[in-house]
Amino acid sequence: MTSTHTLDTLLLILRDSAIARDKQGGHAAQEKQLLREAGLLACAIPTIHGGDGRSWHDTLAIIRRIATVDSALAHLVAFHALQVATVLIFGSDTQKHKWLDRSSRENGWWGNALNPLDRRLDARRVEGGYVLNGAKRFCSGATGSSYLTISADYAPTGEVLLFVADTQQAGIRVLDDWNAIGQRQTDSGTVEFTNVFVPTEDVLRGEGFAPQPWHSVRAPVAQLILVNLYAGIAAGALEEARRYSLEKARPWLFSDVQQASEDPYRLLRIGEMHVHSATAAVMADRGAQLLDQSWQQGLALSAVQRQETALAVAEAKVIAHRASLYNGQALFDAAGASAAHAGLGLDRFWRNARTHTLHDPLDYKLRALGDWELTGSMPVNLYS
Amino acid sequence: MTSTHTLDTLLLILRDSAIARDKQGGHAAQEKQLLREAGLLACAIPTIHGGDGRSWHDTLAIIRRIATVDSALAHLVAFHALQVATVLIFGSDTQKHKWLDRSSRENGWWGNALNPLDRRLDARRVEGGYVLNGAKRFCSGATGSSYLTISADYAPTGEVLLFVADTQQAGIRVLDDWNAIGQRQTDSGTVEFTNVFVPTEDVLRGEGFAPQPWHSVRAPVAQLILVNLYAGIAAGALEEARRYSLEKARPWLFSDVQQASEDPYRLLRIGEMHVHSATAAVMADRGAQLLDQSWQQGLALSAVQRQETALAVAEAKVIAHRASLYNGQALFDAAGASAAHAGLGLDRFWRNARTHTLHDPLDYKLRALGDWELTGSMPVNLYS
Amino acid sequence: MTSTHTLDTLLLILRDSAIARDKQGGHAAQEKQLLREAGLLACAIPTIHGGDGRSWHDTLAIIRRIATVDSALAHLVAFHALQVATVLIFGSDTQKHKWLDRSSRENGWWGNALNPLDRRLDARRVEGGYVLNGAKRFCSGATGSSYLTISADYAPTGEVLLFVADTQQAGIRVLDDWNAIGQRQTDSGTVEFTNVFVPTEDVLRGEGFAPQPWHSVRAPVAQLILVNLYAGIAAGALEEARRYSLEKARPWLFSDVQQASEDPYRLLRIGEMHVHSATAAVMADRGAQLLDQSWQQGLALSAVQRQETALAVAEAKVIAHRASLYNGQALFDAAGASAAHAGLGLDRFWRNARTHTLHDPLDYKLRALGDWELTGSMPVNLYS
Amino acid sequence: MTSTHTLDTLLLILRDSAIARDKQGGHAAQEKQLLREAGLLACAIPTIHGGDGRSWHDTLAIIRRIATVDSALAHLVAFHALQVATVLIFGSDTQKHKWLDRSSRENGWWGNALNPLDRRLDARRVEGGYVLNGAKRFCSGATGSSYLTISADYAPTGEVLLFVADTQQAGIRVLDDWNAIGQRQTDSGTVEFTNVFVPTEDVLRGEGFAPQPWHSVRAPVAQLILVNLYAGIAAGALEEARRYSLEKARPWLFSDVQQASEDPYRLLRIGEMHVHSATAAVMADRGAQLLDQSWQQGLALSAVQRQETALAVAEAKVIAHRASLYNGQALFDAAGASAAHAGLGLDRFWRNARTHTLHDPLDYKLRALGDWELTGSMPVNLYS
Repeated sequence: MTSTHTLDTLLLILRDSAIARDKQGGHAAQEKQLLREAGLLACAIPTIHGGDGRSWHDTLAIIRRIATVDSALAHLVAFHALQVATVLIFGSDTQKHKWLDRSSRENGWWGNALNPLDRRLDARRVEGGYVLNGAKRFCSGATGSSYLTISADYAPTGEVLLFVADTQQAGIRVLDDWNAIGQRQTDSGTVEFTNVFVPTEDVLRGEGFAPQPWHSVRAPVAQLILVNLYAGIAAGALEEARRYSLEKARPWLFSDVQQASEDPYRLLRIGEMHVHSATAAVMADRGAQLLDQSWQQGLALSAVQRQETALAVAEAKVIAHRASLYNGQALFDAAGASAAHAGLGLDRFWRNARTHTLHDPLDYKLRALGDWELTGSMPVNLYS
Repeated sequence: MTSTHTLDTLLLILRDSAIARDKQGGHAAQEKQLLREAGLLACAIPTIHGGDGRSWHDTLAIIRRIATVDSALAHLVAFHALQVATVLIFGSDTQKHKWLDRSSRENGWWGNALNPLDRRLDARRVEGGYVLNGAKRFCSGATGSSYLTISADYAPTGEVLLFVADTQQAGIRVLDDWNAIGQRQTDSGTVEFTNVFVPTEDVLRGEGFAPQPWHSVRAPVAQLILVNLYAGIAAGALEEARRYSLEKARPWLFSDVQQASEDPYRLLRIGEMHVHSATAAVMADRGAQLLDQSWQQGLALSAVQRQETALAVAEAKVIAHRASLYNGQALFDAAGASAAHAGLGLDRFWRNARTHTLHDPLDYKLRALGDWELTGSMPVNLYS
Repeated sequence: MTSTHTLDTLLLILRDSAIARDKQGGHAAQEKQLLREAGLLACAIPTIHGGDGRSWHDTLAIIRRIATVDSALAHLVAFHALQVATVLIFGSDTQKHKWLDRSSRENGWWGNALNPLDRRLDARRVEGGYVLNGAKRFCSGATGSSYLTISADYAPTGEVLLFVADTQQAGIRVLDDWNAIGQRQTDSGTVEFTNVFVPTEDVLRGEGFAPQPWHSVRAPVAQLILVNLYAGIAAGALEEARRYSLEKARPWLFSDVQQASEDPYRLLRIGEMHVHSATAAVMADRGAQLLDQSWQQGLALSAVQRQETALAVAEAKVIAHRASLYNGQALFDAAGASAAHAGLGLDRFWRNARTHTLHDPLDYKLRALGDWELTGSMPVNLYS
Repeated sequence: MTSTHTLDTLLLILRDSAIARDKQGGHAAQEKQLLREAGLLACAIPTIHGGDGRSWHDTLAIIRRIATVDSALAHLVAFHALQVATVLIFGSDTQKHKWLDRSSRENGWWGNALNPLDRRLDARRVEGGYVLNGAKRFCSGATGSSYLTISADYAPTGEVLLFVADTQQAGIRVLDDWNAIGQRQTDSGTVEFTNVFVPTEDVLRGEGFAPQPWHSVRAPVAQLILVNLYAGIAAGALEEARRYSLEKARPWLFSDVQQASEDPYRLLRIGEMHVHSATAAVMADRGAQLLDQSWQQGLALSAVQRQETALAVAEAKVIAHRASLYNGQALFDAAGASAAHAGLGLDRFWRNARTHTLHDPLDYKLRALGDWELTGSMPVNLYS
């Protein structure tokens, strides 16, 4: 990305079209092209592979800013970075060079077919590689992507194997069947696989893989992405409440004030929204600092350091989750009745937050934190 | 209405089409016809005028039930009843007979052009009556109505006058410009008036009107209608959470249960929703009991009794307001990620609640209740 | 009780000494004598047994009023009524006449040794009755009582048997070992039993007892007592906030108001407290109406009606639980920093609420309500 | 302070006596001596004046740790540091050397007589200085102190002047009249002044003083002290909940678990407490980082940087305020009914939190944050 100015300008463009695109759903080809041209696909790719080599702190800060105007597009940029991270975590040097150098060169989008809750995709071992058959749903970023990370069940050992492939490869079909109440342009459709051959050289995690703490760092990366999307939604809703209060809102009939912006209760509600937004951002940044420290360890990452990172991320997740829902709802208390006009599309913050915060249940996150207090450890899994 | 069975059947029909109609917005001509045929327009009309003469308790209980499946249509039935109440409160015996007997005979819908926040409609005195010019926005039920209650500013004295008129009368134009994020089929468009003549006999509240406590009972009626719409939304969201949990939800990956319905956290969240819904209903019913007692007093209603009713209604309003928003949001925590599918339209509960709860600000309601504690009285106005 | 006036006067007396007695803890002999003289022990005793024969609605309303100034003494009056109810539920006509007629005649206090969580008290069958040995802790009202209801484990069958006895009987020793952070004068010490003989005629529930729904109505009675104590605490805290705001509080340095009672935020907080208190009272009263209807059924009570009552009581419990804690804490926000002076003892509302709301866990109450939604039934046990 | 080990040991000692001392109130002479001997009075004194020269981050982290076991003693250490800061902010080099070098040498306690809400203390100009007459209440740390910072009204100009004095000076009398429901050993009594002469050389802020942004940095220091006390209370309550759950709590009767520590709802509640505590700590630390940066600017501190610090501190204040109250109350939900035993004194966390969080009203803090959103600035005053 050439400059901060570029991002600012881009955000204005995205904000202008966000309401219409939220209504429409589907694939935002034009806007994805703008994000690509702005250089945002390079953030998480190391300089050795032709990327910007940004820290997670900086990459996630950019994603959070995008989420203030459009959390669906921010999700796409973020999940692109998550697949890059997947290659960096599991790939050999050869694989990293092959796929990430190419990714930088082509400036292409990464998508995924990794949904761990959907077990319909099977891998079968054949000469020189594996053949994939079946499907995965909720594959964010698959539509319009150049490359895919893929997970599949391998029946003989019960293992889950990990692959990289070209999205255009024969036998791969990306459906346009994502249609949710929020996060509508995340290209999270189903990917179907029919006799898709993946050569051994593109197996990221094969049979008999012995995971180190380092390999489980992908979960905190994914969770921290969600944290920043939520925090961005909270900040965006606050920004709209601020703007509406200053530009359009009128004082309530029985208030004693001349300007809506002087109403003591409006100030209180905006103050509450501010605290939610600011706290989510602080917690997100602190999670990113710990993640960057863990990330720099690579394979030397200890289980203890990995857990400290996961702990900070889980704390931030609870805060950001609630901030996004709170601000998405409180925006209307701050703005008033006229803000419910559909043309303003201000409900999209709540709908985006509500859709995305269902990713994994908050109660189980809190339970894990309770466990940590009582036992000194948290579960290590795909969500923690 | 012939029977409970009729209403049950009607609710199933309305529920089936609610998702599509929420998306579409606009005027629900067909469903309004069904509501009309089911006899629901007769609830609040006294038997002496050809109606069912139901108590407010019973009328509002029916409205609440309709709101569990479609709070926009429930709003229409309720606002029809509110305009009937307006005629009953302000009308002379002659006016009541003229308009309500006819209303019963024709089984026609009442709409309104009464929005007190919109001061653009003016009345000018002429020989034999008044001429109206200007407009009112947010006129629930105007589209498709047969009769209108209308309020207009009378400049010479600064008073607000009240009228009844045929919706079809020349000079009245109902626009289809209501487009909100929720409560989408409430026909709440703008009504424009161009040289509309209203004869003296149709003036409900004229110049020099000296209001009694009885005349201000309209505010508690209107507020209690909102209470029941909110309570209905809360109950409807709970019903969907219950159904989804039993029929579609799957246990979370890291729970130890076989059925989603055994998950301790899901049970907790549904228990919370239950408390919200049950409490809103109890508070609504208790408000209705006090309202019925006040209502039976007619012009003899004392300021004290009127205030006790308004107090109970305000308490119920706070509870139901919060219940509708809470349940509209928690429904998804109870149901899980797959419930965000747009085809299920489950976000309509929150959107309906959010739109309608902006009617008047909750903080000012709480302030009025605080005032009551410290001063022993509450403001008497259009919202309290 | 001779008159409302008597109760009003008594409450003023109790309020005056409440702060000192809360500090002191132990047995409030003098105040218990006043309650006794005011006739409050007769409320729940049927007229046929020489009592006032009040409905639960009326008895609990009195208890709630006492709780506004002293929830510990209210607890004693309430638990007296609960033991009377226990005799009415389980006793034969002969037993009811023997014990309740005498109770009326002597105007004596009932205490209990029934704690189901403490299994240390054993019954052994002997010629003509049972011999009790062991102890029960947390026996509210035991100190200073004339009569006791007692439960004991009967090892041969694993049953829990129920008895009535004179507190003064040889072998019964009531300890003064209750010392909690709140509800400090509830006389809830340990009762020790050493070879206490109970004749067969005083066995309320013996071996081979086959319970009907009627017998399990004791749980809703006990729970509704707690509801009213909580609701009384909430109302008492609000009353103190109101009084302090009017009489002592000063406007905050940076407010623009002349009187503390005009501060918009103070009004908001008091409004919130009002809603909590009012809602708890409404829910409590509605539970009492259902309880009275169930109570009138006696042995004819159906499981369905019993459950409807238990459901209403559980809903009220959640609301009142939260109201007591909320108001106990918010009282200080409404009153301001100077209200923390220990001499005012205003923390006793929160301490009383906090102590008593631990009786059974709220989360399990919510779980039971969630169960009811999903399965159509709630557990029938000592807490529900 | 010689080592971390010293602090750990000291905290164990303070924790052991905390329950008894909370009950007793008054002056903790012995424990203050231990704190003094542990070197804790040197934290905030620059090395050039013989102190440890710790950053605010480190000083406040120590204060927060003390607050986990005794937030009253932590308050004393903190307010000692605040008076040191007052001398550093307002004092000339000569004054700093005179008072802080001596303070280091004698290892004496600082107290204050600065309460801005109490305007009863007057300064009168005399030859060579001022004479003080009147009183200040709520003077934390005055009892047992060696030195006092003092503010007094100067009638001729309406200014508030600032002084330093020996607590033992003739005419100064420290009363033992602090008696609150919490924070009971903060030595916050009234200080009376009878013809107390202060020479010109001990005037910290004199007539005609023109304040720079630097001088208003005292408010963020004071506020951040409160933040850390609140955060410490939240952490201490969590620690007790953890300990009780592991060591004493028993599973609820109707849970299906063998150990209390496996109860899903207990884990949830402890998880909630963890999030509150962790977030308060993170926000406190981030406020300290900004404060340290502002502090290093000295007189060069810009209004903008000062405001950024104040903003971060205000955000942290809201979070920590709520965390302390939430955890003080939730501790009992996590621990269960038996935790209400007065001998455990577990209510002291809530009482300490409740007392101290009344320092300045939360609603006005939120209003200031709302103001910041809408106007881009926050008020600069003694609380912000």
